[in-house]
Amino acid sequence: MIIQMEAKAGEKQLERLVERLGNDGFPPEMLDISRGDTFILVGLKGDTRAIDEGAYRALDYVLDVIRISDPCKELTRDFHPRPSIIRLGSGLRIGKDLAVIAGPCAIESRDQLMKTAKLVVDAGANILRGGAFKPRTIHRSFQGLREDGLKLLAEAREKFGIPVITEIMDARDIHLFVEYDIDIWQVGARNCLNYTLLDALAEMKNPKPVVLKRGDHVSISEFLGAALRLYDGNTKVILCERGDKTVDPVYRNVLNLNNVAWLKKRYHLPVLVDPSHGTGVRQIVPDMALAGIAAGADGLMVEVHHKPEEALCDGAQSLSADFKKLTPLVRQVFELRRQAKML
Amino acid sequence: MIIQMEAKAGEKQLERLVERLGNDGFPPEMLDISRGDTFILVGLKGDTRAIDEGAYRALDYVLDVIRISDPCKELTRDFHPRPSIIRLGSGLRIGKDLAVIAGPCAIESRDQLMKTAKLVVDAGANILRGGAFKPRTIHRSFQGLREDGLKLLAEAREKFGIPVITEIMDARDIHLFVEYDIDIWQVGARNCLNYTLLDALAEMKNPKPVVLKRGDHVSISEFLGAALRLYDGNTKVILCERGDKTVDPVYRNVLNLNNVAWLKKRYHLPVLVDPSHGTGVRQIVPDMALAGIAAGADGLMVEVHHKPEEALCDGAQSLSADFKKLTPLVRQVFELRRQAKML
Amino acid sequence: MIIQMEAKAGEKQLERLVERLGNDGFPPEMLDISRGDTFILVGLKGDTRAIDEGAYRALDYVLDVIRISDPCKELTRDFHPRPSIIRLGSGLRIGKDLAVIAGPCAIESRDQLMKTAKLVVDAGANILRGGAFKPRTIHRSFQGLREDGLKLLAEAREKFGIPVITEIMDARDIHLFVEYDIDIWQVGARNCLNYTLLDALAEMKNPKPVVLKRGDHVSISEFLGAALRLYDGNTKVILCERGDKTVDPVYRNVLNLNNVAWLKKRYHLPVLVDPSHGTGVRQIVPDMALAGIAAGADGLMVEVHHKPEEALCDGAQSLSADFKKLTPLVRQVFELRRQAKML
Amino acid sequence: MIIQMEAKAGEKQLERLVERLGNDGFPPEMLDISRGDTFILVGLKGDTRAIDEGAYRALDYVLDVIRISDPCKELTRDFHPRPSIIRLGSGLRIGKDLAVIAGPCAIESRDQLMKTAKLVVDAGANILRGGAFKPRTIHRSFQGLREDGLKLLAEAREKFGIPVITEIMDARDIHLFVEYDIDIWQVGARNCLNYTLLDALAEMKNPKPVVLKRGDHVSISEFLGAALRLYDGNTKVILCERGDKTVDPVYRNVLNLNNVAWLKKRYHLPVLVDPSHGTGVRQIVPDMALAGIAAGADGLMVEVHHKPEEALCDGAQSLSADFKKLTPLVRQVFELRRQAKML
Repeated sequence: MIIQMEAKAGEKQLERLVERLGNDGFPPEMLDISRGDTFILVGLKGDTRAIDEGAYRALDYVLDVIRISDPCKELTRDFHPRPSIIRLGSGLRIGKDLAVIAGPCAIESRDQLMKTAKLVVDAGANILRGGAFKPRTIHRSFQGLREDGLKLLAEAREKFGIPVITEIMDARDIHLFVEYDIDIWQVGARNCLNYTLLDALAEMKNPKPVVLKRGDHVSISEFLGAALRLYDGNTKVILCERGDKTVDPVYRNVLNLNNVAWLKKRYHLPVLVDPSHGTGVRQIVPDMALAGIAAGADGLMVEVHHKPEEALCDGAQSLSADFKKLTPLVRQVFELRRQAKML
Repeated sequence: MIIQMEAKAGEKQLERLVERLGNDGFPPEMLDISRGDTFILVGLKGDTRAIDEGAYRALDYVLDVIRISDPCKELTRDFHPRPSIIRLGSGLRIGKDLAVIAGPCAIESRDQLMKTAKLVVDAGANILRGGAFKPRTIHRSFQGLREDGLKLLAEAREKFGIPVITEIMDARDIHLFVEYDIDIWQVGARNCLNYTLLDALAEMKNPKPVVLKRGDHVSISEFLGAALRLYDGNTKVILCERGDKTVDPVYRNVLNLNNVAWLKKRYHLPVLVDPSHGTGVRQIVPDMALAGIAAGADGLMVEVHHKPEEALCDGAQSLSADFKKLTPLVRQVFELRRQAKML
Repeated sequence: MIIQMEAKAGEKQLERLVERLGNDGFPPEMLDISRGDTFILVGLKGDTRAIDEGAYRALDYVLDVIRISDPCKELTRDFHPRPSIIRLGSGLRIGKDLAVIAGPCAIESRDQLMKTAKLVVDAGANILRGGAFKPRTIHRSFQGLREDGLKLLAEAREKFGIPVITEIMDARDIHLFVEYDIDIWQVGARNCLNYTLLDALAEMKNPKPVVLKRGDHVSISEFLGAALRLYDGNTKVILCERGDKTVDPVYRNVLNLNNVAWLKKRYHLPVLVDPSHGTGVRQIVPDMALAGIAAGADGLMVEVHHKPEEALCDGAQSLSADFKKLTPLVRQVFELRRQAKML
Repeated sequence: MIIQMEAKAGEKQLERLVERLGNDGFPPEMLDISRGDTFILVGLKGDTRAIDEGAYRALDYVLDVIRISDPCKELTRDFHPRPSIIRLGSGLRIGKDLAVIAGPCAIESRDQLMKTAKLVVDAGANILRGGAFKPRTIHRSFQGLREDGLKLLAEAREKFGIPVITEIMDARDIHLFVEYDIDIWQVGARNCLNYTLLDALAEMKNPKPVVLKRGDHVSISEFLGAALRLYDGNTKVILCERGDKTVDPVYRNVLNLNNVAWLKKRYHLPVLVDPSHGTGVRQIVPDMALAGIAAGADGLMVEVHHKPEEALCDGAQSLSADFKKLTPLVRQVFELRRQAKML
């Protein structure tokens, strides 16, 4: 961290700053002071994460406070050079093997879930998704089957031998997720910065892997800050990129693949990509799935429905009515991943 | 709602659509069907809020589904022509009298809060704010005094006879807010779409007024959807505009005053404006406070600290060290409001 | 400018950097070098505007290059403490007197322009606007009356004794603007970064005042960079804020009043605000006009049409059919400006 | 196009609308009128591109005007089902063969360009880029070698037998581009909506292929509108995606690959991707190049410099000092393209 003061501040102001830094745990020997004609620069050595930049910006003569080191050091490749690998009970190693998560936006009925699960397994996907608790903008819309949905997921897992993922929206539902032994817990985009929920998950004993979806316009540093909250209590954190709202009416969101490339390059957590929410346009979901894998993603999360025209939510984002498109897509992403490893 | 189909769809597809609409509660007599050369347009009469657009978009030959009526009808001026007025115990009528909420970002100590409260009251503000629970990006930063903060707020209220507002982040803290009889409960920007929290607040008996801050890049329709969740159980909902992240590094956020003007013009809930978070630049907070009032806002929420250079968070956004600027600002906003009423 | 190197870079790399800085005009005596455990910071003293940051960022071991001083120093209040005032032939002093520019988006006919001009003058506005050359997204739409439009504007000026402003899109039209002696030349938002056009305008002898509209998502530093290109040859530059595209479908653009407050606080050029394009929603144009003035703007630019339902472009943004709303708005903005001066 | 009126408008208002539509070339037989309880919907049959939506939105009782058909019909796959292929003199078929355009941001000297050109050719790229005219934010920065740059490009083309591309910023330079017989003319992002320049290029006899880069936050419809201006006079138009500014300080821009997938799916023009400007982060340029090809792009445009640490602009975005990374990247993109064709 560098604090930039106006040179005209004078020694008295500088002393005051140095004293204050001392109170915040940075005695003079942890400071680099450089006096120039225009600016005085004070560099801080050591872990500055607990320092509140704003408090220093508010000081007279302070022009700027510049953070240099990464406040989420534990998540960087410097700290943990190799990619983290998260093993599921099924043997799948997320971060190493390609994860293909598919399933309906919302679980609507046993029949729907079992049919979809069969199609998902047959297509070659290796994790089944399905929403039991649904955050909907208009609260009088369908909100999910809730506990019954979890029960159906558990049933599908037994029947098809495939791990399952579903979204947790409320810390008060943790016991249900434990009861039905959900394999991967998802924190949705709207709750990306819901610190209450993240902290409750981080405090669990024997936690399961958690997929954290990036919220709308959440920056890389906010996203990693949220991930670190989880990681402190549960290292099995998987990131998921799902796009930002856009000024262009063509899309629901625009997938930010810069994030996938950057998170993989600099940090060690596995990264998934959700081309369904990241576009909101069914026709380009397969292209963007491939693009995500090419950018370095460790897997996909796609919405599918055995009859999208009857889906109770997000039908336009589902892949296809008859799954004719899921099978070739899964084949393609595995092939692309295999080749990417060789490139 | 209008469903737009390709004309080449043919009668069979149209029948299928009509049948499906019937199942969703829209029999043929509630439909307007218009056949053109290129498109068939099906208009739905009645309350279409429970209809899932996505499901219809996924049907073959359906090109688009266009919502026309406002899903948050109860919040519109059509439904409730006069502005809602929310009375506090102090007699202040939010939505009619100008509300000026001021205080520190975070409550740090009794001394700090009492000093600030005195300055706030002397300056002419009529509601005291202070954060007890703080959502911070990096979780190892200072997270607030929590219950002790609520206790101090209650003490300040007694001492200065001023209502208090503070942020609730977790439904599990509701009993504390009840215990200390917090006058106005704030839902922060990060929790704007935290439906779990909103629903818990909506279910309360004898609820207090709630200020709902717009989250980053949350659209008007999402914001109203969240407000309606609260409103269904508690009509004392106050909206607050606090800006969006921006591509321009000059600001922390950009205040969206279009929203203030539009929300006041079309909806009946009171609207506040937060120029501190809406800029992140101390020098322009007063200008943007005035601009917010000129755009139609019913009040302000500003951060102040008796010594901003010692604030533990958000110091750069606080108004001034010695409150020299708060008093003239309060005088100006009251004057502007008075004149605006006469203009 | 501060160049931040990794401490592990070693003296050799540092020497190489210092040598390179010497070649770029920064000999060792213009550098402040501060060696820390983690970083080496090299501060540059003097005018660094010609330095290319990217070239230094590309050097091995360089982590960041941080610009501190304003590359548009001539436009700051440090350089020119009082607001610039631009006098028109009519005696109006832009930057001191409130400028109210009103008129149709496009000039359509003599009848339309003269009727509108009369209404504009009667309502109390002091500059007449009207588009002669129109940049339209779809090029087969109406593109403006071109030279005939300029002729009509000149005619309206003579008839009503009011200065006129219109947009120049092409350096090849400069002679026409000179011929019809257009009082204020506007560079539109799409051409904000069209350096060819800006440079051509800057090279003129005896130039007229130029209004430069901020382009979509153009940052403050890009905007000032464009303004400085003009200012180097013509100090009579007036800035105009007109909003950015938005993710919210309610608006065409969102007016960024942070920019108005910031530009007025830190820089000396006059700043106008365009609430018509900055919203795209007729109902809130008056509110946003007032908000703009409250934020510190020196004037307004609003679209009006004597019969908006017949306007050939941008009708939804025009103020009203019968100008009933323009007269009270002009009265209000003058009243607000008067009071703002006294506040 | 559908015009939505309130049902309470009454027959008189509807007649007025119908009459007005008649004047605009839509007699009653080209209208579909559907009367509902809440709304009257008027559908227009035929080519509505010349209709000004705003004028209709401004009418009393009109709530909305909804465009349905694509105003850039000629660019769609409906109109031209197969991808357009643009042949260069070198035999390269853009839209069919993978185009790999590489070279320095700015041409700085003969030595630099010739060395870079050799490396580019050796690495397997098939088009050489280099900026002769440079749009720089701060106009006192290096602005390019101008005509001398074009001359050097022509020399490099002769020497290495590789077609060249460079940016045209001013219609007054057209004769120079003709004189040096530049193979592909680039319109840069800042000039994407500079209609003066686009129209001048469209009017040329025997035009060369033009690459049109998408400007910051330019929407798909604006981008296609600009492309159509060119296409009307010169069908050899190539689109290039290069990202938008972002709220995240990590990147200079975020590449929008949704656009690549969508433009390829729905329109027939070739689409390139520029991962250098689309990220501004050297480390992820190769990943995003691959992602762009996977999303369907017909080629790449990447910045390289034989010694990036000495580049006069955009060094941080250049690929590498010694080109060690260009050769494997070119190999990878060709391999990915080959496989994508087989997937």
